[in-house]
Amino acid sequence: MVVILDGREASAQLLGELKGRVEALKARGVVPSLALILVGEDEGSRRYVRMKARRCKKVGVEATIHHLPEASTEEVVSLVERLGGDPSIHGVMVQLPLPEGVDEDRALAALPPEKDVDGLTNETLGRLLRGERCYPPAGVGAILVLLERYDVGYEDKHWVVVGLSDIVGKPLAALLMSRGISVTCVAPDHPRLGDYTRMGEVLVVDVGRKWAVTAEMVRPGAVVVDNGNNYEEGKVYGDVDFEAVRGVASAITPVPGGVGPMLIANLIKNTVEAAEASA
Amino acid sequence: MVVILDGREASAQLLGELKGRVEALKARGVVPSLALILVGEDEGSRRYVRMKARRCKKVGVEATIHHLPEASTEEVVSLVERLGGDPSIHGVMVQLPLPEGVDEDRALAALPPEKDVDGLTNETLGRLLRGERCYPPAGVGAILVLLERYDVGYEDKHWVVVGLSDIVGKPLAALLMSRGISVTCVAPDHPRLGDYTRMGEVLVVDVGRKWAVTAEMVRPGAVVVDNGNNYEEGKVYGDVDFEAVRGVASAITPVPGGVGPMLIANLIKNTVEAAEASA
Repeated sequence: MVVILDGREASAQLLGELKGRVEALKARGVVPSLALILVGEDEGSRRYVRMKARRCKKVGVEATIHHLPEASTEEVVSLVERLGGDPSIHGVMVQLPLPEGVDEDRALAALPPEKDVDGLTNETLGRLLRGERCYPPAGVGAILVLLERYDVGYEDKHWVVVGLSDIVGKPLAALLMSRGISVTCVAPDHPRLGDYTRMGEVLVVDVGRKWAVTAEMVRPGAVVVDNGNNYEEGKVYGDVDFEAVRGVASAITPVPGGVGPMLIANLIKNTVEAAEASA
Repeated sequence: MVVILDGREASAQLLGELKGRVEALKARGVVPSLALILVGEDEGSRRYVRMKARRCKKVGVEATIHHLPEASTEEVVSLVERLGGDPSIHGVMVQLPLPEGVDEDRALAALPPEKDVDGLTNETLGRLLRGERCYPPAGVGAILVLLERYDVGYEDKHWVVVGLSDIVGKPLAALLMSRGISVTCVAPDHPRLGDYTRMGEVLVVDVGRKWAVTAEMVRPGAVVVDNGNNYEEGKVYGDVDFEAVRGVASAITPVPGGVGPMLIANLIKNTVEAAEASA
């Protein structure tokens, strides 16, 4: 029987546990606090940032949106520095992408690694690769937290990651390597893609194409993680042909309702951990 | 016929070319300059730093050894900062390991990425993973420069890297991923190691055990890179059983005389490139 890795269920459970940890912190006089930096007027980003703030508040984490409708690189850098240096704030997140003309590298470089709860900076990526303390990028944390919740025992498995993005594929591989886990990373347009995907005892697909991975590309018994979000006529589809692959896999994430719901839960978890580390 | 990837020959050739580039820089009034920081009294490190300085001078690159026989973290950080801020110096290298009590992370964090010609900092590793401009760690640069010299056409091949060290395996995988090259990284103690090594069209071995990779573990026609340096009764042996594997591979590095000689040549190449970038 295939296990459905239900991100809605797992994130609700995780948020419930975090509530308890937040109360314990508050009893010690620490209010876990996240600063969300929003630059420009992109409607999607605004909505997403507001959603993050609402979810924080639900578990008792203080969330403040710092909105700069228009800003130079210097103004963004100095806001990041100010929040980075404020001891009452435990996590700082810069909503990406930044508007054209604002230097993302410089803005992120100003963020101290111990407050980089969304895992956005080069320093964090370097630490990830070295196996030093850091918060992995949200997309990576979301996948790992989901698999840990379902206890699929991924550490002794061979991972295959399809898709080499800066926010999922590459940092996920870096984290696995730093834990001594063997991993194959392959570009989605590889001419012998199926030969590689069939090696995966855990298969992570981040391709951006509806149903790019079919049943015959999956190793029987594999754990399949679908990071796709492909919109077609108002419906969302994964990168994996869920109905076919569920017959082959031992566990699989649905889309929607798999990795997606874990993203914000993971951000809040990191903020709580940063507050615990500071307390 | 197997091609022997001769690092002595390739590094001599590279250094010859660098001489010309150094002369061109000097004609424009720029003297490429490397600062070598040595902390403590380790005899091996002292010898290695002196060797680096001598090789620099041979091609006209100025090399200054800054030796602190004893130093606190603060003293090392302030030396790194001073050299990092000096516009007449193009590359800064901190000889590792630092003596106990000196915080390596803090010392390296003070090094500006554009002068990190030995690829030591977390910022560099993050850039490597993202595919941004940086100098890869010496061990990675040495391998790539050697393969490029022999034009083995590695970009469309599947790479397998055995060994997950901070200075070779992990950053090499990061660089390959950032170029869209598919790569499998596997720990040397993996129970099915041979299954993975046989996948490698390019196989890089960095294990630290004499002849850990035998002929039956190598895919016929593979390019084999041996990063081993195992001393036994005054002789040095690779991680690959060279005599047996040369009958299977299409190209192979010898030990000694393979990757080793490329390390210093690559450091000097990076220093010259840093000088060119600043000029």
